[in-house]
Amino acid sequence: MDRSRLEAFSDGVFAVAITLLVLNLVTPVPSHNPNHTLLKQLGNLWPSLLAYLLSFLMIGIIWVNHHVLVRSIKTVDRTLLFLNLLLLMFVVLIPFGTSTMAAYRLADSPDGRTAVVVYAGAFFGMSMGFASIFEWTLHGRERMLRRLPREQHWPARIKFVSGGLVYLVSMGVAAVNSIAGFVIIALVAVYYIVERTPSPDGSDLDSDPEPG
Amino acid sequence: MDRSRLEAFSDGVFAVAITLLVLNLVTPVPSHNPNHTLLKQLGNLWPSLLAYLLSFLMIGIIWVNHHVLVRSIKTVDRTLLFLNLLLLMFVVLIPFGTSTMAAYRLADSPDGRTAVVVYAGAFFGMSMGFASIFEWTLHGRERMLRRLPREQHWPARIKFVSGGLVYLVSMGVAAVNSIAGFVIIALVAVYYIVERTPSPDGSDLDSDPEPG
Amino acid sequence: MDRSRLEAFSDGVFAVAITLLVLNLVTPVPSHNPNHTLLKQLGNLWPSLLAYLLSFLMIGIIWVNHHVLVRSIKTVDRTLLFLNLLLLMFVVLIPFGTSTMAAYRLADSPDGRTAVVVYAGAFFGMSMGFASIFEWTLHGRERMLRRLPREQHWPARIKFVSGGLVYLVSMGVAAVNSIAGFVIIALVAVYYIVERTPSPDGSDLDSDPEPG
Amino acid sequence: MDRSRLEAFSDGVFAVAITLLVLNLVTPVPSHNPNHTLLKQLGNLWPSLLAYLLSFLMIGIIWVNHHVLVRSIKTVDRTLLFLNLLLLMFVVLIPFGTSTMAAYRLADSPDGRTAVVVYAGAFFGMSMGFASIFEWTLHGRERMLRRLPREQHWPARIKFVSGGLVYLVSMGVAAVNSIAGFVIIALVAVYYIVERTPSPDGSDLDSDPEPG
Repeated sequence: MDRSRLEAFSDGVFAVAITLLVLNLVTPVPSHNPNHTLLKQLGNLWPSLLAYLLSFLMIGIIWVNHHVLVRSIKTVDRTLLFLNLLLLMFVVLIPFGTSTMAAYRLADSPDGRTAVVVYAGAFFGMSMGFASIFEWTLHGRERMLRRLPREQHWPARIKFVSGGLVYLVSMGVAAVNSIAGFVIIALVAVYYIVERTPSPDGSDLDSDPEPG
Repeated sequence: MDRSRLEAFSDGVFAVAITLLVLNLVTPVPSHNPNHTLLKQLGNLWPSLLAYLLSFLMIGIIWVNHHVLVRSIKTVDRTLLFLNLLLLMFVVLIPFGTSTMAAYRLADSPDGRTAVVVYAGAFFGMSMGFASIFEWTLHGRERMLRRLPREQHWPARIKFVSGGLVYLVSMGVAAVNSIAGFVIIALVAVYYIVERTPSPDGSDLDSDPEPG
Repeated sequence: MDRSRLEAFSDGVFAVAITLLVLNLVTPVPSHNPNHTLLKQLGNLWPSLLAYLLSFLMIGIIWVNHHVLVRSIKTVDRTLLFLNLLLLMFVVLIPFGTSTMAAYRLADSPDGRTAVVVYAGAFFGMSMGFASIFEWTLHGRERMLRRLPREQHWPARIKFVSGGLVYLVSMGVAAVNSIAGFVIIALVAVYYIVERTPSPDGSDLDSDPEPG
Repeated sequence: MDRSRLEAFSDGVFAVAITLLVLNLVTPVPSHNPNHTLLKQLGNLWPSLLAYLLSFLMIGIIWVNHHVLVRSIKTVDRTLLFLNLLLLMFVVLIPFGTSTMAAYRLADSPDGRTAVVVYAGAFFGMSMGFASIFEWTLHGRERMLRRLPREQHWPARIKFVSGGLVYLVSMGVAAVNSIAGFVIIALVAVYYIVERTPSPDGSDLDSDPEPG
């Protein structure tokens, strides 16, 4: 199996998951109560809209990083397919985490904090999936187009899994303060949009690992 | 990353978003009330059917225009990926705007007007995403297959963003008269079906920017 | 634009529409009423299961026929894109028609008959989309890989649109007897599974219009 | 028609079906009842989460096996397309089986047992689809890239359909004990993750049937 089938299936799952986010934006029910005008009801949707914005960006970022990682892979084996499936399993949980967080309106109540912990947990699981794929790339001679020298394994590992630690921290923080937990994940999104992510072979998106 | 991955992911999002529109057509509930025959209930669905028709055409048009724009792009960088993500974020909001507009039945009430403003707003945001991608194509030497001469930048910009202005106007008009706002967007759809859209390199869909 | 983008987008819409059919199969609600065991509730789902089976086959058949038609096309222009969009608009309505028909349980009541007329109507609209694409292929020199000789235009037209007439007949029959209308569409499905569909250039799926 | 279109459509259906599984995870409704904290409600979701986990893995496994089978196929004909459609019809039923099983919470009640029988039934139907495609590959000279020698037909058949028998057994066991039925399917998932599946030409995923 070549890389393209893995990419096509993953792209499909990413595309469906990012589009399902819109199902969390429930259309307001028409009402004759002057306190429930559409404008007021839409204003009340702000936690859903904020959650939509962040989750859309995050799934988009994961998609970009997935490509940077996958395009440096040379051979696809069964182990990689299941590690990729593990990653996708948490990506597909993001719409559920998003709607849960929005339902509890980011309130700093016990339930509101639990909801953000669940939301952050989906990203933590996703990052563990990424880390396991990255670890897979380090073993075996024929797995990467350009093999990472052994002395760079640990620095790359540390750089790569630090994203996962941030999500673990955001889970801990959200257990104490829901808004602070949300802000940490939002900062991760801003970081990834501004910064460039390293790929396992040291290249990034804007360089081309395959000449021609 | 080559253009094809960007296209595959975008195509996936477009395909899911356009198909989710059908979820707004809620199956009538069987009833023994002679005033709620299926025929009458289907007749009552006309705002949903009209909204379905217009949104389906609009997403189809955006998909066509997206291709005309993207196929003239030579190199994909991280900035382009996020501008494209911004565009898709508003495309995915179209089913939400559609169901909101349909729920308020295009009535010229305060809520009905708000609903059409929301609907037009999704298109305005989408057009801003397009304009930002277009602006990106104008900078840097290696971004386009055929670079637009500098003296054509402003005429092309004006031509390209005028679509966005139409949506802004439709938002303003919808705030005063919901049906008039809806008609403006419907006229945009008719225009795009009849006319040819310019691409940044001056070609259009029916010419081929890449020989061979 | 080459054919592959048109195919990728259409394939995406077909794949989402065929999968959304499962949303019509509503999970029975657990109940302690001995008359509402899961087995009885599943038995009551037979109209939904029958509608799922037929609609799944029909969308699959339309997908196959879409490929036979599209792969004989040489150049894609804007007109073709919008005719294809028209076809897809009716394909996406099939899940709505399916759930409507299932909700009224194929009963031979006035509402049950209306429901099957709506269901058959989605197929009739789809077939009109097909006929318009076929008509497009007959005009212009460069549209087909292998041009159909002029003397075969009318025989091919008649062969091609006869499918559409069957759906029109099924709408008329369903207006009188819902089950008879349903059976006609089921016979169309059986016909397409057993028979081979002609493509505009006279080839069929099992021959290859492009050597190499 | 070449193999790639069959793969693209199937990949789309697999991607949508696997992502729709998340719709079974219903967001808890905020409540002021201290016995309905979010944490308790999430804890109550365990049957849904367990069903999500197993179904996600199973659809992923079917996707992997589908590729191993399809990439050894040389020519696509109409019969293969409909056998593939039959397979996909049962794949799309998996989200329905999953939500039914989760709704009855794996309880060892009459309804809980029926629910696991339905769930296992979707996998049994899917495996029959696989077996029919495999049988198709054995007939005709030009169907496979590497034809299986006649003396290996029966051993391969037996190996290939044994998966289907396991699902039949799990249906029978689930009719007596719902949890035991569920465990059998979970063991199938573990088996496929650990073991390598044979493809009709004797190769497996990690070997390459097409040099170059």
